Amino acid sequence: MSERLIVIGGCAAGMSAASKARRVNPDLEIVVYERTGFVSYGECGLPYYVSGVVDDYNKLLVRTPEQFAERGIGVHLHHEVTEIVPENRRLRVTNLDNGESWYEHYDRLVITTGGRPILLPGFSQGDQSGVFVMRAMEDGIAIREFIRRESPKRAVIVGAGYIGLEMAESFHVLGLETTVIGRPPQVLKLFDSDVAKLVQEELEGKGIRLSLGDEVKALEGDAQGRVRRVISSKGVFEADLVLLALGVRPNVALAREAGVALGETGAVATDTQMRTNLPDVFAAGDCAEAYHLITGRGAYIPLGTTANKQGRVAGTNAGGGHAEFSGIVGTAITKVFDLYAALTGLSEKEARALGYAVESTTIKASSRAHYYPGGGPMHVKLVVEEGSGRLLGGQIVGGEGAGPRIDVLATALHQEMTVEELSRLDLAYVPPMAPVWDPLLVAANVALK
Amino acid sequence: MSERLIVIGGCAAGMSAASKARRVNPDLEIVVYERTGFVSYGECGLPYYVSGVVDDYNKLLVRTPEQFAERGIGVHLHHEVTEIVPENRRLRVTNLDNGESWYEHYDRLVITTGGRPILLPGFSQGDQSGVFVMRAMEDGIAIREFIRRESPKRAVIVGAGYIGLEMAESFHVLGLETTVIGRPPQVLKLFDSDVAKLVQEELEGKGIRLSLGDEVKALEGDAQGRVRRVISSKGVFEADLVLLALGVRPNVALAREAGVALGETGAVATDTQMRTNLPDVFAAGDCAEAYHLITGRGAYIPLGTTANKQGRVAGTNAGGGHAEFSGIVGTAITKVFDLYAALTGLSEKEARALGYAVESTTIKASSRAHYYPGGGPMHVKLVVEEGSGRLLGGQIVGGEGAGPRIDVLATALHQEMTVEELSRLDLAYVPPMAPVWDPLLVAANVALK
Repeated sequence: MSERLIVIGGCAAGMSAASKARRVNPDLEIVVYERTGFVSYGECGLPYYVSGVVDDYNKLLVRTPEQFAERGIGVHLHHEVTEIVPENRRLRVTNLDNGESWYEHYDRLVITTGGRPILLPGFSQGDQSGVFVMRAMEDGIAIREFIRRESPKRAVIVGAGYIGLEMAESFHVLGLETTVIGRPPQVLKLFDSDVAKLVQEELEGKGIRLSLGDEVKALEGDAQGRVRRVISSKGVFEADLVLLALGVRPNVALAREAGVALGETGAVATDTQMRTNLPDVFAAGDCAEAYHLITGRGAYIPLGTTANKQGRVAGTNAGGGHAEFSGIVGTAITKVFDLYAALTGLSEKEARALGYAVESTTIKASSRAHYYPGGGPMHVKLVVEEGSGRLLGGQIVGGEGAGPRIDVLATALHQEMTVEELSRLDLAYVPPMAPVWDPLLVAANVALK
Repeated sequence: MSERLIVIGGCAAGMSAASKARRVNPDLEIVVYERTGFVSYGECGLPYYVSGVVDDYNKLLVRTPEQFAERGIGVHLHHEVTEIVPENRRLRVTNLDNGESWYEHYDRLVITTGGRPILLPGFSQGDQSGVFVMRAMEDGIAIREFIRRESPKRAVIVGAGYIGLEMAESFHVLGLETTVIGRPPQVLKLFDSDVAKLVQEELEGKGIRLSLGDEVKALEGDAQGRVRRVISSKGVFEADLVLLALGVRPNVALAREAGVALGETGAVATDTQMRTNLPDVFAAGDCAEAYHLITGRGAYIPLGTTANKQGRVAGTNAGGGHAEFSGIVGTAITKVFDLYAALTGLSEKEARALGYAVESTTIKASSRAHYYPGGGPMHVKLVVEEGSGRLLGGQIVGGEGAGPRIDVLATALHQEMTVEELSRLDLAYVPPMAPVWDPLLVAANVALK
């Protein structure tokens, strides 16, 4: 009889794990239980589905349950795993459509339960209509449907992180008057405030109202239970639609209750093979930590890139192969209207908080040769360890070229390069893509002084 | 009395050297002799000036002679240095405007005489009107003026390298029927033929006629001395305008006659401080070699990026400071219509010719998330040393993101990374800029198999 691998959660990490396990082990029985109605889709594309840039949510799908079935991966939608009993390797599944529940045996288990949206304290989703989170496909569909049906005029987004800002653009594109309320005094709190300021200018320049250093006290609705205003410490914001974009926490209740050890961050701790403390139980994706190559600690930075990589590694090992996930350097990027804001490694404030003596350099260069039309400013900030000159982090805000350029800095971090080594790089140049001194080299040269 | 630095040639390398020497040494007398009527301009922008994308050649200027004068750098245009006498540190200068010539003393010398265009054998420029090279500002001005005045209908470009292809686009944009004749059986001979083929398809798709594996035998003119056709081994091409874009050779006659040692490539050999074999004589830019970090030999790959870096280093050292140019990995990029074609390190054929046992991997990925509109194919080729798994080179053909992505591979080459290390990189992802698996990671993962 073949062994059975069960994957809990059909997100990117889960489906990567299932696919990879199938590839390394054609004999394994592979079953995926997914609480929602969708698996294997581009979660990060949801803001673009809401805005209409992506016209059909089916386009976000990478593979359908039928396609997985063809590969011998059984996908069960609307099935929730409510209990894991590691002692006798079984778990309890509930069919959410009919309420039936039963125990299933597993030989190996991959936990990819993802993250769950942080809500306002004292608020449970569903209290008022017009209040949304943006996490799963159903959320994107519900928001788009709500906008089509109710034609809201004013949107308030609570939270100024990646999703909050991407959704601000989506709402703005749809003609909604949009306000973003954020508790920290800046948007994108992982960035340094001087860099975040550039993003704030872009948002305000496009007509997004920002209320930063502000805290939401209550959501008020009308007699019909529709949300009507957001009460914050700084004022009252009329709203026909409220999006709670406060980030996610690792969804680990199930794992924790089964005795799976969590790390300092509260997410599942794993080794480099994505094994948890329980035998033959793996974890990956937004419910798990990732080893941070610079801090040398477990980090919780839930992103699709990491989820996919971890999923592959978990799946390879669960399938009987061997793979390792070496870790992250904290690379992330978001697009806010015409700007990309990207970071990798440690921000200046984070580095200081960790006790590093650092110097930082911020330069403004042009994204193209000065004479070539269509260029724009590109801001590069480098965070460098004093004395050693080692690069600890970088932040870039600019147009098209910002993203792949942060990748150069990410590579430099993986390699523990110094800013002097960075300044020596033989980088590409052609007038439509860069000045002859690439913004990265300008930054490195200035940092060297 | 202050010491005198003379810079021979006001190209990018020369003016970088002069500027840097000034910064490290405020007391130095600095004099630049330049044969043409321009210094300090974006040479790589000339094709865009011809096409009209850049409407005024003055926009290509970085700094004028007057601006250099303000910094205490004396720039003499239309002055040619015809002899260097290292024994008593003097050189002979000729004022090309009036024919006067005299000797000048130097304490330190930077030779930045650049490259000179390769011509057809037996052909001297000026034999026929309508025949051009594209090297200096005057060439760009002359071509644009000729097109304005003569309204040529058919252009033939001899040479299918970077300049040849960029000029093919420029001529096409101006409505000229354009043919490119190249001797190798592919365009961009530094690239592998499978990659070059993608560029050929782009060119032919836009209506550029290619005649590859072809050799020009003669240029024929009419009674008025105007060029009328190009006779090649494959046919006869009607032409009202001919551009010779056969590349450049290092312009080293002056240096060689003065006893400056050349390297294997025929360009000036220098150490890492850009010193030649003669005391206090430096060389930089398109007349000099660059140390190739992968082959460990001197290379002749004349590019603006290297020229600028070498110029800075030569100027720093000539000014009495200390700087080193560590070398290149051979990164280059060109834009051909909507495609960027970029390479770094060794091509597969070059690696094999050098005796490496290599495996190569070519993948086609999408430049954006599959559902995000506006993406296009991105082709990535990795050349990997067998056994060690070390990356030896990469080639990318695609849209906007190709350029900075080659920089990631260039960084990997500087760091002697393996393809496995490449596959572990924590690269950025947001749907408008990349798929969740960046094309570089897809290529690395495929190469690992």
